[in-house]
Amino acid sequence: MTTEDTVFTKIIRREIPAHIVYEDTDTLAFLDINPNNPGHTLVIPKKPVRNIFDADDATLAALMHTIRKITPAIQDAVGADGVNINSNHGAAAGQEVFYLHFHIIPRFSTDGYKHTWGHTTYKEGEASLLAQKIAAQLA
Amino acid sequence: MTTEDTVFTKIIRREIPAHIVYEDTDTLAFLDINPNNPGHTLVIPKKPVRNIFDADDATLAALMHTIRKITPAIQDAVGADGVNINSNHGAAAGQEVFYLHFHIIPRFSTDGYKHTWGHTTYKEGEASLLAQKIAAQLA
Repeated sequence: MTTEDTVFTKIIRREIPAHIVYEDTDTLAFLDINPNNPGHTLVIPKKPVRNIFDADDATLAALMHTIRKITPAIQDAVGADGVNINSNHGAAAGQEVFYLHFHIIPRFSTDGYKHTWGHTTYKEGEASLLAQKIAAQLA
Repeated sequence: MTTEDTVFTKIIRREIPAHIVYEDTDTLAFLDINPNNPGHTLVIPKKPVRNIFDADDATLAALMHTIRKITPAIQDAVGADGVNINSNHGAAAGQEVFYLHFHIIPRFSTDGYKHTWGHTTYKEGEASLLAQKIAAQLA
């Protein structure tokens, strides 16, 4: 499936319905149909982008503009206490629709959701070497 | 604690050490000391911002520029298969350091991490009303 024929593209084209909360020239925001909590919203660019690995700065800036703008309204509308803004890039990271999207997930002090992933530790000197390896790629 | 005296501010000021992978005028990226996976990186703005609720567009655009730039290098350095780019805003959302930061978490097909949060469903008409309520705040 290409980025051009995902469910999100069909929502942009109004070929399938969605509960749209915000739209501007570059982005669209709508309620997730399988929400973790009420008000769970997805924000997508209108320009087809697969994920962070083929995104450009302008698209990401437009998405963040929309996220910043709508997050307080979402939080207020559902009376949430905080939000997670999460995104998955690649199947191994849980990406299911291969069209760039950010989740805005309202959180409640009482929702009981935990981040249950494990942790790892670096051996002596390993973190330093890894940081140097990454930095070297970017230099 | 104010945004000005968090551990991240001290890392920016080089008052405490960190394994820095990238730095530019507006942002700093360094290895998380308690990583979910090797290469788990935090990206922060140099300008003190508490979370999405007091962020400005320029700060968010700068963060996304850095994230876009460094994510492929992080993925390559650890041989990951994907990444999550996640952020917590407010204590109820799991924010522990009240200084805006995005997590870049390398993911491996074999890491076994699942998103275990529950889901909720909207009653008939509820999603439509909620979307209208949010949209009305933004109109």
